[in-house]
Amino acid sequence: MSSKRLYIQEVATRDGFQNEARFVDTDAKIELIDRLSACGYAKIEVTSFTSPKAIPALRDAEAVMQQIARREGVVYTVLVPNLRGAERALSCGVDEVNLVMSVSESHNNANLRMSREQSFDQLRDVIGEVRQTKVAINVSLSTAMGCPMEGDIDQAEVLGWMQRFADLGVHGVTLCDTTGMAYPSLVGALCAAARERFAALELTLHFHNTRGMALANTLTALEAGIDRFDASLGGLGGCPYAPGATGNVCTEELVHMLELDGYDTGVDLAAVLSASALLPGLIGHDVPSQLLKAGRRLDLHSMPRIAADGLPEQRAFSSGA
Amino acid sequence: MSSKRLYIQEVATRDGFQNEARFVDTDAKIELIDRLSACGYAKIEVTSFTSPKAIPALRDAEAVMQQIARREGVVYTVLVPNLRGAERALSCGVDEVNLVMSVSESHNNANLRMSREQSFDQLRDVIGEVRQTKVAINVSLSTAMGCPMEGDIDQAEVLGWMQRFADLGVHGVTLCDTTGMAYPSLVGALCAAARERFAALELTLHFHNTRGMALANTLTALEAGIDRFDASLGGLGGCPYAPGATGNVCTEELVHMLELDGYDTGVDLAAVLSASALLPGLIGHDVPSQLLKAGRRLDLHSMPRIAADGLPEQRAFSSGA
Repeated sequence: MSSKRLYIQEVATRDGFQNEARFVDTDAKIELIDRLSACGYAKIEVTSFTSPKAIPALRDAEAVMQQIARREGVVYTVLVPNLRGAERALSCGVDEVNLVMSVSESHNNANLRMSREQSFDQLRDVIGEVRQTKVAINVSLSTAMGCPMEGDIDQAEVLGWMQRFADLGVHGVTLCDTTGMAYPSLVGALCAAARERFAALELTLHFHNTRGMALANTLTALEAGIDRFDASLGGLGGCPYAPGATGNVCTEELVHMLELDGYDTGVDLAAVLSASALLPGLIGHDVPSQLLKAGRRLDLHSMPRIAADGLPEQRAFSSGA
Repeated sequence: MSSKRLYIQEVATRDGFQNEARFVDTDAKIELIDRLSACGYAKIEVTSFTSPKAIPALRDAEAVMQQIARREGVVYTVLVPNLRGAERALSCGVDEVNLVMSVSESHNNANLRMSREQSFDQLRDVIGEVRQTKVAINVSLSTAMGCPMEGDIDQAEVLGWMQRFADLGVHGVTLCDTTGMAYPSLVGALCAAARERFAALELTLHFHNTRGMALANTLTALEAGIDRFDASLGGLGGCPYAPGATGNVCTEELVHMLELDGYDTGVDLAAVLSASALLPGLIGHDVPSQLLKAGRRLDLHSMPRIAADGLPEQRAFSSGA
């Protein structure tokens, strides 16, 4: 059994909540994040400093960032789309800003309403400003494993954008499978190439479980040497292109699998499950997490009782073969 | 890219339907199976010849088995728990009987209401009878990767039961992750050991997605040389120990991933998706399949329209990073 150390980054209060119709009260957000801070995550993406008009669900970004109880050893990061967002984030004393653009032109246009080159120009300015501080800079590259409008994305395109940001001195890059288009062999090839070419970058993989492959993709990324993963409590984080589909890879399912496979995730799975159980009350609906329903692998069950007719009350064969 | 041939075996009309509260009409079952026969499966588990009292959902086993239009090249198998079931199955001219017992004593008692030794004695009699015909014999070993009541199952225990059935001359064994307790490293070790020790057996892996790991476990099984997998259309097949949890690994999600990774599954994914779309109408509720909701990886979307305020109608960042 390996005991390799992995780094798990929680994104539910950003990538999850931004998709929710119901506004989660500021106090409830703070309470949840404070609880997550005790779970052993390497990083927590607290919120997004984007326009309150664009994402009303996160219109309380300053209040949340300023009022959470920050814990030693946890990196508190926030999503930042532009210079205005970066200034707001810096004023709250974040540990890291997470800049974002898409490697696909269509998706960048749809999501950010500008061309990739315009985005890059803006982000270069942001990076220039943030590098004058001690705040770390990560760049999230959306649609790095497929664009819902354009389809396949060339690996060379992804590596090219990584290079441009590496040249600007960012400390980390996240490869985002924004709409769950990644598949294992693609992930393996991309991760191996990225890991080899950018050995000095902190590299994160961000999977969505839209088509059920998030944990399989994680396995392949691990084999390619990736040790840092975004995940979302409860599997929050829907995708507007796939109504009803699940969201980000589910934190508790990711940690559960990785622990069973002998990895040291740093994360307290029981504490994460307790936190996940609070989500339906906050957002008003069930969450995609299967583990929350089924329990951990060794959460054992008692023998079914035998009914008067000699058949188990749980129908014989109901769990089949 | 590999183009290794894999063999996909559909179990929805058995492992799926047996768990459904609503009785699916016999004609509807036949129509669905006939449709599945054109999808390229290696094998279809049509029904279960168990007591109609134990599983009323499959009380029409004879009618279904006798009236489906069997297609050359597809193996039609049925679950058989005992000698009476085997006789019923043989009278319908099945290609294969799939016998079942659990490798865990508690689960065998709960599911079959007898000890493992009693089950083995019964199945030995069944095997003796069936071996006088040309009908093939597969044995499904339930709880081979964990028992919901006992927890871990020793690999030696699983291999021991495989040996006892191999010694009786069965042609295949299915290792069943009955309640979704398998995890990748366990799967890899068990499959490698089974593959090495029983090279002459047709070996099938049967995963449930109870804790989200079915596709990850499949990847590891593939690496250990497994080429044959059970799967369930729509992901049907709940587990009584995990109310609300997903069922068997979903056929369309499995085939989608395997195709993307370059395997030849023999299965027509579009035809499978069309068949899966019929399930909610038959069983009266939504199915776990994410792929049915999200569409295939390259089922592309058009650009979101921009609303009057200059924001996309789909909220900016709603698919996040």
